[in-house]
Amino acid sequence: MERLINPEDHIHRRETADLLIFNVLLILTIMTIWLFRQRRVRLLHETGGAMLYGLIMGAVLRYGTSPSLSQSTLIFSCWNLQTTPATLMVNLSDQVFEYRYIGEVANDNVKAHQGNKMLRKLTFDPEVFFNILLPPIIFNAAYSLDKRPFFHNFGSVLTYAFFGTVISCIVIGAIMFGFVQIMSNLGQIEAMDLFFTDCLYFGALMSATDPVTVLAIFTELHVDADLYTLLFGESVLNDAVAIVLSSSIAAYRPPESPAAFSASAFFLSVGHFIGIFAGSFAMGTLYTFITALISFVLYLLNSGIGFTKQITKFTNLYEYPQVETGLFFLMSWSAFLSAEACGLTGIVAVLFCGMTQSHYTYFNLSSEAKSITKQVCEFMNFLAENFIFCYMGLAMFTFLNHVFNTLFIAGAFVSFHWLAFPTFKPCTCTTIFASRACNIYPLSFLLNLGRKKKIPCSFQHMMMFSGLRGAIAFALAIRDTSTESKQMMLTTTLLTVFFTVWIFGSGTVPMLSCLSIRVGVDPSEDSKAEITTQTDARERAWLFRMWNAFDHNFLMPILTRSGSPLTTTLPAWCGPFARLMTSPQTYKSRENVENLSSKPTTNIPDIVVSPETTENNDRQASPPANQENMQERELGLGGFVLRVQPCGVGSKV
Amino acid sequence: MERLINPEDHIHRRETADLLIFNVLLILTIMTIWLFRQRRVRLLHETGGAMLYGLIMGAVLRYGTSPSLSQSTLIFSCWNLQTTPATLMVNLSDQVFEYRYIGEVANDNVKAHQGNKMLRKLTFDPEVFFNILLPPIIFNAAYSLDKRPFFHNFGSVLTYAFFGTVISCIVIGAIMFGFVQIMSNLGQIEAMDLFFTDCLYFGALMSATDPVTVLAIFTELHVDADLYTLLFGESVLNDAVAIVLSSSIAAYRPPESPAAFSASAFFLSVGHFIGIFAGSFAMGTLYTFITALISFVLYLLNSGIGFTKQITKFTNLYEYPQVETGLFFLMSWSAFLSAEACGLTGIVAVLFCGMTQSHYTYFNLSSEAKSITKQVCEFMNFLAENFIFCYMGLAMFTFLNHVFNTLFIAGAFVSFHWLAFPTFKPCTCTTIFASRACNIYPLSFLLNLGRKKKIPCSFQHMMMFSGLRGAIAFALAIRDTSTESKQMMLTTTLLTVFFTVWIFGSGTVPMLSCLSIRVGVDPSEDSKAEITTQTDARERAWLFRMWNAFDHNFLMPILTRSGSPLTTTLPAWCGPFARLMTSPQTYKSRENVENLSSKPTTNIPDIVVSPETTENNDRQASPPANQENMQERELGLGGFVLRVQPCGVGSKV
Repeated sequence: MERLINPEDHIHRRETADLLIFNVLLILTIMTIWLFRQRRVRLLHETGGAMLYGLIMGAVLRYGTSPSLSQSTLIFSCWNLQTTPATLMVNLSDQVFEYRYIGEVANDNVKAHQGNKMLRKLTFDPEVFFNILLPPIIFNAAYSLDKRPFFHNFGSVLTYAFFGTVISCIVIGAIMFGFVQIMSNLGQIEAMDLFFTDCLYFGALMSATDPVTVLAIFTELHVDADLYTLLFGESVLNDAVAIVLSSSIAAYRPPESPAAFSASAFFLSVGHFIGIFAGSFAMGTLYTFITALISFVLYLLNSGIGFTKQITKFTNLYEYPQVETGLFFLMSWSAFLSAEACGLTGIVAVLFCGMTQSHYTYFNLSSEAKSITKQVCEFMNFLAENFIFCYMGLAMFTFLNHVFNTLFIAGAFVSFHWLAFPTFKPCTCTTIFASRACNIYPLSFLLNLGRKKKIPCSFQHMMMFSGLRGAIAFALAIRDTSTESKQMMLTTTLLTVFFTVWIFGSGTVPMLSCLSIRVGVDPSEDSKAEITTQTDARERAWLFRMWNAFDHNFLMPILTRSGSPLTTTLPAWCGPFARLMTSPQTYKSRENVENLSSKPTTNIPDIVVSPETTENNDRQASPPANQENMQERELGLGGFVLRVQPCGVGSKV
Repeated sequence: MERLINPEDHIHRRETADLLIFNVLLILTIMTIWLFRQRRVRLLHETGGAMLYGLIMGAVLRYGTSPSLSQSTLIFSCWNLQTTPATLMVNLSDQVFEYRYIGEVANDNVKAHQGNKMLRKLTFDPEVFFNILLPPIIFNAAYSLDKRPFFHNFGSVLTYAFFGTVISCIVIGAIMFGFVQIMSNLGQIEAMDLFFTDCLYFGALMSATDPVTVLAIFTELHVDADLYTLLFGESVLNDAVAIVLSSSIAAYRPPESPAAFSASAFFLSVGHFIGIFAGSFAMGTLYTFITALISFVLYLLNSGIGFTKQITKFTNLYEYPQVETGLFFLMSWSAFLSAEACGLTGIVAVLFCGMTQSHYTYFNLSSEAKSITKQVCEFMNFLAENFIFCYMGLAMFTFLNHVFNTLFIAGAFVSFHWLAFPTFKPCTCTTIFASRACNIYPLSFLLNLGRKKKIPCSFQHMMMFSGLRGAIAFALAIRDTSTESKQMMLTTTLLTVFFTVWIFGSGTVPMLSCLSIRVGVDPSEDSKAEITTQTDARERAWLFRMWNAFDHNFLMPILTRSGSPLTTTLPAWCGPFARLMTSPQTYKSRENVENLSSKPTTNIPDIVVSPETTENNDRQASPPANQENMQERELGLGGFVLRVQPCGVGSKV
């Protein structure tokens, strides 16, 4: 029986059917999430559930479906083509590919495809992860980051994220290189060249931790805010470090031979790391500054304040939340695209863009736009995250070039009894946890030398335990599967993700009770305690203090409608500019109105209510609003609220 | 100077730079929109502005950029490839293509590309329009459709949408075929075979109207609600008809010769039309029913009402807006994908899915999820619409295979002085408006024979004037550009879109005053007047009445938490099922709570407040809530509110 199905039509149907499978998986996952949340299931986290569904669906697709008769008919049905193909794709390799039609707009819509045996593969272009799925996840993490506790623990977080990731990368690389040496002695890797740099590359991608499971449980149980902030802050930044680190290692190309060490190539790589990181940071913040300025000017024009008083015809407070939201997201995505177009790392740019957007632009948005940006961010994050975990499960079966190398996998999972936890005896420590131990314990020791509020041992153990691997490690691994060794790394990464998410994700609650970490912490109590220790901390952290003063006196008033009026902070000769940018009279009164009406959900404006300021204007209504914020934040990120009072503000306002 | 840029890197950078250009265009458009709205500019609508920006950017890219030296270097830099390419793409034609790398997951990430002169083309796979950009636009139109006035004018809207589109298609096809005959006599189209079916295809794609500009102005000026509903309802449905019509015409393949008429092929085509339309409708509503049932069960489980009373442990009213929203959108997208995978039309499925989702599922959502779904829908629509209009401007210059055929374009734009408007003398009527005249005037005449409230002549003229072409026509035209004649159609479509959006979009306000159509209509007054005429209308529209009774007595209570309790509407032998699905006691009390607290923005639940019902329970708080809805709806769609009281409800509740 011959059917007159256009091959192109057939491909389109297959593609939509593939997407439908993902949709069904996501729907199942979402319904499971609902069930888990309603029943308060903590044994298997929703991300673990998503992976499980993916795995089952992958197995069904791999082994349950017949090699589809219709396809083999299709391949030879070239008489179906009504015009000469404009392009032909010739497969020169012996590998199995997914056919993927080549979209040309300008020519015959003939999708010539190679004549290999086509397996239903359900794989995406790996760039989809980097360009579509990861940015919303990273942006949301950065945008929802509670900046006060984050900046309070800034030094510690930076230390873990930078030094810790580098240590972790080197430790994993070294251990894996040892196993590779064993493998080559056993003659297992004749076909592939695995150099030390390859092992380091594997180390870098395995250093990106993703404790989404642990953090969800922390939020639910109201775990100590310091622990939460350390872990969350580290995981947000360490993704960026791992991504740039892996690209720097990939860029390390000694001119002589890949195995030899070349000082010049090494320093080039280090320079690459610093350059990419700094460039991406600059790109992200640059776009935030532009967005904040535009939205500030829009706000001024809308309300007819400041220099716009003369040029604005209508002094209406019309709000266009879609315009604001559209601008906000398009500018943030532009930061990503600009960074990628310049050869920088878009995800890092998006990370810093998100952090700064929530620090500046957020305050210029109308209350409706604030709520929409938050909701859209969270929604995109929710979908992208569940999709990635589903896909990871699916990829275990649908990715066709898996390389299961027992020794390499054993290398990642090997037992190091000599590195057993101090408090948790009968345990099996894996390479990834060994690397994490080398990251957390020595760095915590060093940090505790300088910290007033020490990081207790139980926190250190918990942080070590929370070294789960997730989306970033997988995305980095699947980005490059060109050689057999890279395919082996992908397989090993996938297995590690499964192992950590299922085993360690489920072990979070027992581990918390085992380490007797206090749960059910009341954030308001916590913050009260913090306020007393805050003064000491403030005096010590001069860098933080300087930055805060600069931010509050110059950046905030230029970029947002909060902070000290420019007329008081800028030197006298800047007077005209200051007056142009702000009109203190209307400004102040507006600020009061804003304080009373708006309620940012995760951020408190830098304007801090101190006794001095409440005396001379009607801000007495603000403290209850702040109280409300605290309750809301408790449900959001679980962070504690520090009423940091930026130095010298009280006397100036 | 040789630089070690990976060709793949280079392609990636170029692609992100292309996306960045679109981003910048959209940002410019959005800022212009803000300016236009703030200054209340009505001369050029925002969509016209978007096209203008696209046109300028396209011209700059086409003529302003040099043929890029770096590319010609790149093409021959095959030594850059570090591995053997896995696939080779061979260009067999003499056309200029965009190079587009072939994403393989499993193999070398080498993107071999053909060695043609590569122009910066900035074109998308046309399927992107159909699979990514159009669905949110259509879904939002359907989801935000004010169903009461829509159903009130249901017959008229259907007539315009179905018969009108078919008439319009035939008229345009016939006129264009006349011009094609002239062209072939003049020897202009030797190379291309343009049959009558091709002209009909052009007629079908040109019949999809997109009066977004006009409707925006209608909303702003509060134009008569009947006119608004007729125009909006028609434009929503007529897109679906045009899409299915064009696919049916494309499916018309007489076995003998393409020029001959074959009755069997014709009836096959008609069957194709009916089958595709009915199938897509069924697919869309099926998914809505599933979504509504799932969300209803989730709601029951969450609140522990009905049959879930026994199985629900926690009777908490926990709300998981993200779960609900995720489910809502994924199911709606699944409707699209399922339809496409079955060879139906996804956009039509999404259209009916959107309409039914807002009729059933919407009422099962928590208030937060209601707000998120509305906001996400509107936001996606906002971005997609502006993107398409920007892209249309850009495509004028960046699409490389334009075929400007003066006669064909003249055919579309030709003057028909003999078809001049009756009331509007010195006018130039084009083919597209001639076809619209043949659609609107005869059908309005026929409809007025049956309508109690006649469609006045001024409304008919305004509807004729509002036959703007937009996104759907363009998407249909760009979907197939395989032959020269199709390319000619695309070029002509683009020019028509520009012409109608700029000229007729700007002429809306003058036209309204010229036709003395009343603006600034107070919807509450209007609805009062409607209520009196409603009773008559109700008695006549028995089909509508029957449907309404069935919907209210069976569908609503099964699928949502509103409508009559099943125990009263189902026959006695269905008792157990009815009791399983609802527990009237808790049900009623919950309903009251809901009525007091929730305020749907564009829909009023079918539970209607009638004097009988307010007497025996505490629903007296509802009327003010409804009043509030009316004010909100006025800002939303400009539709008027009919307090339709479904027959026999008052006595049953």
